[in-house]
Amino acid sequence: MEQQTKVGKYLFLAEPFHCDFSNHLFMGHLGNHLLNAADFHANDRDFGMHYLNTIYKTWVLSRLSIEMHEMPSAYAHFYVETWVENVMRFFTHRNFKMTDSETGRVYGYGRSVWAMIDIRTRQPADILAVKDGAIATYVDTQMSCPIDTPLRVKTGKDMLLQRTIDTHYSDVDVNGHINSVKYIEHALNLWDAHWYQTHRIHRIDVAYVAESHWGDRLHLYLEQVSDEEYNICILKQSVDEELPVETCRIKIRFVNN
Amino acid sequence: MEQQTKVGKYLFLAEPFHCDFSNHLFMGHLGNHLLNAADFHANDRDFGMHYLNTIYKTWVLSRLSIEMHEMPSAYAHFYVETWVENVMRFFTHRNFKMTDSETGRVYGYGRSVWAMIDIRTRQPADILAVKDGAIATYVDTQMSCPIDTPLRVKTGKDMLLQRTIDTHYSDVDVNGHINSVKYIEHALNLWDAHWYQTHRIHRIDVAYVAESHWGDRLHLYLEQVSDEEYNICILKQSVDEELPVETCRIKIRFVNN
Repeated sequence: MEQQTKVGKYLFLAEPFHCDFSNHLFMGHLGNHLLNAADFHANDRDFGMHYLNTIYKTWVLSRLSIEMHEMPSAYAHFYVETWVENVMRFFTHRNFKMTDSETGRVYGYGRSVWAMIDIRTRQPADILAVKDGAIATYVDTQMSCPIDTPLRVKTGKDMLLQRTIDTHYSDVDVNGHINSVKYIEHALNLWDAHWYQTHRIHRIDVAYVAESHWGDRLHLYLEQVSDEEYNICILKQSVDEELPVETCRIKIRFVNN
Repeated sequence: MEQQTKVGKYLFLAEPFHCDFSNHLFMGHLGNHLLNAADFHANDRDFGMHYLNTIYKTWVLSRLSIEMHEMPSAYAHFYVETWVENVMRFFTHRNFKMTDSETGRVYGYGRSVWAMIDIRTRQPADILAVKDGAIATYVDTQMSCPIDTPLRVKTGKDMLLQRTIDTHYSDVDVNGHINSVKYIEHALNLWDAHWYQTHRIHRIDVAYVAESHWGDRLHLYLEQVSDEEYNICILKQSVDEELPVETCRIKIRFVNN
């Protein structure tokens, strides 16, 4: 394997059919690009899924935060740079920077927190035990990520059930879990055309609490924190379990267009 | 604009999070790649949306058929070749060929039918009147597309309502219409995990009848034609209209894994 730099830089296209009615990339598709960049970066450095699967380990996304000054428009080519900010025994922090490939203009930044688990036991695994902590040699301290660390999403008593949805074939990823970006899509679907005509998403924070599975029913609860800030709590209900269990929490901050 | 060949060839990646639980690309995402290839090919030759928007015209997808021997697996790089098979006054036929970029192995083929409309009147426009029929100079007669032409989807009296869904922000494209591939996703969501564990999609034929819009309610009707062939009819119901109207018809042929 050739020597790799600490920072990975990947080119993406804001595909026309991945853009919303305002002609800007959907936040869900941007999230997918970030997950791809993370995956490519880790695989290229031999601590990605490709290697981990051979030792019965996998990465699990715990937090994802994205803050955008501007969303790429249809047909824009943009870079996602990604790097490991730090690594501890059970968690690692990975950051993202999104820039226009032509002008270098910064669209925004992202932060994420990942855990490692043993696929057989589903228990946390020691990240630093993999290849004698080789991931630590890739920690980058030069790049800056000038956005807040993942925001805590408090679930208050004013949460109101907004929608209950069933999960289907298209929601499920290769692990049989509901795809991480599908929660974002389902959450953003809570707002109507009128809202999106006057607002765009400034920042989204997602805390992934527990995996949900194909066939689970998702209950979406919403709480308004301020005019433009909302907390969402998604509970999952399996067919074989009576009580709903929290699967993820999301905080969304909108800004006026 | 530099001289272009008749056939466009575009490289795509079967992104890991665009793959289903069997580790193969979702048909919806493949459909999206085909629409991208069509869009790139047409724009590169100056009869795409970029030019058409300047003269208040746009392409409208009327039929899409995809037949696959095999679906790309996660991380596979594959080519989509696309070319114009013929062009008439109100319709043009565009074909697709999907191959593995490393081995050249053919995954499958696609066919599509497009109309052109005037954006202001929503009425059909004369394709051959655009740039004195310049599109005709790109008609390719060398490439073969060895699959059936788009199959007629008959809607019989045995259609049964399977599911009614509301359309949301994530369903809507830049034109304010429900995205063409979302119908495919919603249709494929009618089958459960048990079915997909033993079946894969061999062929899908979609006839787009009328556009539906953000907020429309979609009624999905299903009719079983044989053990592995199904017809789906999707009706849309606008909030301001009492009677549902047909928006698209889909035929799906599965094969046993």
